[in-house]
Amino acid sequence: MSEHGLGAWMRARQNQIEAALEQRLPAVHIAPQRLHEAMRYATLGGGKRVRPLLVFASGEITNAAPTALDTVACALELIHVYSLVHDDLPCMDDDTLRRGKPTVHVEFDDATALLVGDALQTLAFQLLAEAGLVNDAARQLIMIEHLARASGSRGMAGGQALDLSAVGLQISRAELEFMHLHKTGALIRSAVLLGALCGEIDPPQLEALDRFGKTIGLLFQVVDDILDAEADTATLGKTAGKDAAHNKPTYVTLLGAAEAHVLAAELRTQAHAALADFGASAQRLRELTDFIVDRSF
Amino acid sequence: MSEHGLGAWMRARQNQIEAALEQRLPAVHIAPQRLHEAMRYATLGGGKRVRPLLVFASGEITNAAPTALDTVACALELIHVYSLVHDDLPCMDDDTLRRGKPTVHVEFDDATALLVGDALQTLAFQLLAEAGLVNDAARQLIMIEHLARASGSRGMAGGQALDLSAVGLQISRAELEFMHLHKTGALIRSAVLLGALCGEIDPPQLEALDRFGKTIGLLFQVVDDILDAEADTATLGKTAGKDAAHNKPTYVTLLGAAEAHVLAAELRTQAHAALADFGASAQRLRELTDFIVDRSF
Repeated sequence: MSEHGLGAWMRARQNQIEAALEQRLPAVHIAPQRLHEAMRYATLGGGKRVRPLLVFASGEITNAAPTALDTVACALELIHVYSLVHDDLPCMDDDTLRRGKPTVHVEFDDATALLVGDALQTLAFQLLAEAGLVNDAARQLIMIEHLARASGSRGMAGGQALDLSAVGLQISRAELEFMHLHKTGALIRSAVLLGALCGEIDPPQLEALDRFGKTIGLLFQVVDDILDAEADTATLGKTAGKDAAHNKPTYVTLLGAAEAHVLAAELRTQAHAALADFGASAQRLRELTDFIVDRSF
Repeated sequence: MSEHGLGAWMRARQNQIEAALEQRLPAVHIAPQRLHEAMRYATLGGGKRVRPLLVFASGEITNAAPTALDTVACALELIHVYSLVHDDLPCMDDDTLRRGKPTVHVEFDDATALLVGDALQTLAFQLLAEAGLVNDAARQLIMIEHLARASGSRGMAGGQALDLSAVGLQISRAELEFMHLHKTGALIRSAVLLGALCGEIDPPQLEALDRFGKTIGLLFQVVDDILDAEADTATLGKTAGKDAAHNKPTYVTLLGAAEAHVLAAELRTQAHAALADFGASAQRLRELTDFIVDRSF
């Protein structure tokens, strides 16, 4: 793959977000040390960094400043990591493996994992409120409000609640889509929007991007369901087959594997269509869309 | 007590915050219904609302707009309630009674209580980011960043972590103060500051108010420790004597009851001193200071 290819771009951006997170997380020598150690353990050294990659790719459309993109990418990833740490707790999915390592409550303890998630969420909002993040404070408030809506009871946390209540139930395709649009989709959509909002963009363009974000949010989850059913734990870096084991409805259990693959292909086409008017500035977003479908982890 | 007395003012403001919270929490008919029901159960119909009262009283100093104060008071209370819901979980204090009712995880379940806390925190930041909350977006960002710092790993959540790690240990008075300045103090201090920032205030005044806020944050906790040791469960509306039962260091265990009362009196004097230059506009803050010391619950 050439230096300008997606693989090299992704590795460079993954290194960049790692450095940005490392810089923004409290150092371990600061009290409370154990909590800060656990926050860093949860966040650093792993993950595909899909949300940060979307922030960076979306920021290319508006020529956004790199430091703003770094901070916004960190905020999105911190919200994502907080949700993983809480999801893995015994009272939720009770999982022991995440990103190829023991989960936070296994490596530390349940109470620390609870506080890690709480504090990572807070840090995300703290970062987004930093003076001068973008050159328009009113736009910055819009970004904060957007991330909050995407993460809260009518976004990610709400999707999590729906996911819990759906265990063991027969649900319709519409209900499954509603759940996933909240649980995974809202934050991915937010990554696309906030990346672009680091620069200036006119409303019709923003609307098209938001359509793109909503589509790949769903696409990401459909592929996740396929991978959970078809890949193995070593490849995923997290426990494979856990949806089936937890008796959770997925696109694969609902539609069957073949139909789930068809749906993924349809959503890929829709995602590309939403980007049709953007020209070369959206090239990374197009490549990421294909990567999301073709990935094996 | 006269209509202009503190008791009447407090009751009016407690009704006001109840209505404001009721209005800002998602309705139970909105999905996910069980989560929204639990968020409302956790938040509505109880509590002394100390942080909102401080927001309102502090806002009197800067003649802040009532709607801004309502929203800021809600944000502070939502952060406080989220911390209570998480603290009560089995992996933390494992408590079954709060504000005279079964705790959220007892009334619902652990997973729901976890998500309730998560979503209440998010809602707090969503409210503070609302367009036009105050007439200066840059000041609004400062308010958000301040609340985030006060709530996060170097504020409230950090104090919680220190509290957990101190169980069963002999700690010094300096260490206990450090813990309480984080665990309870940071959010109370933030309430005072954010209430004033709903209006305009010059830096020296803000600094004096912040000194006041830090002092009553500590004062509140000293009195809490005294009440935990001396009051009964029925009066408190939460389990009394739980610090001793959990083998947690408190001002009473560290200093003895008599010395803890002396410390409370000293802090009350310091708090009043910090308000010396404010004249009549700080009258409610002075009355609240005395109430915090003299309360029996």
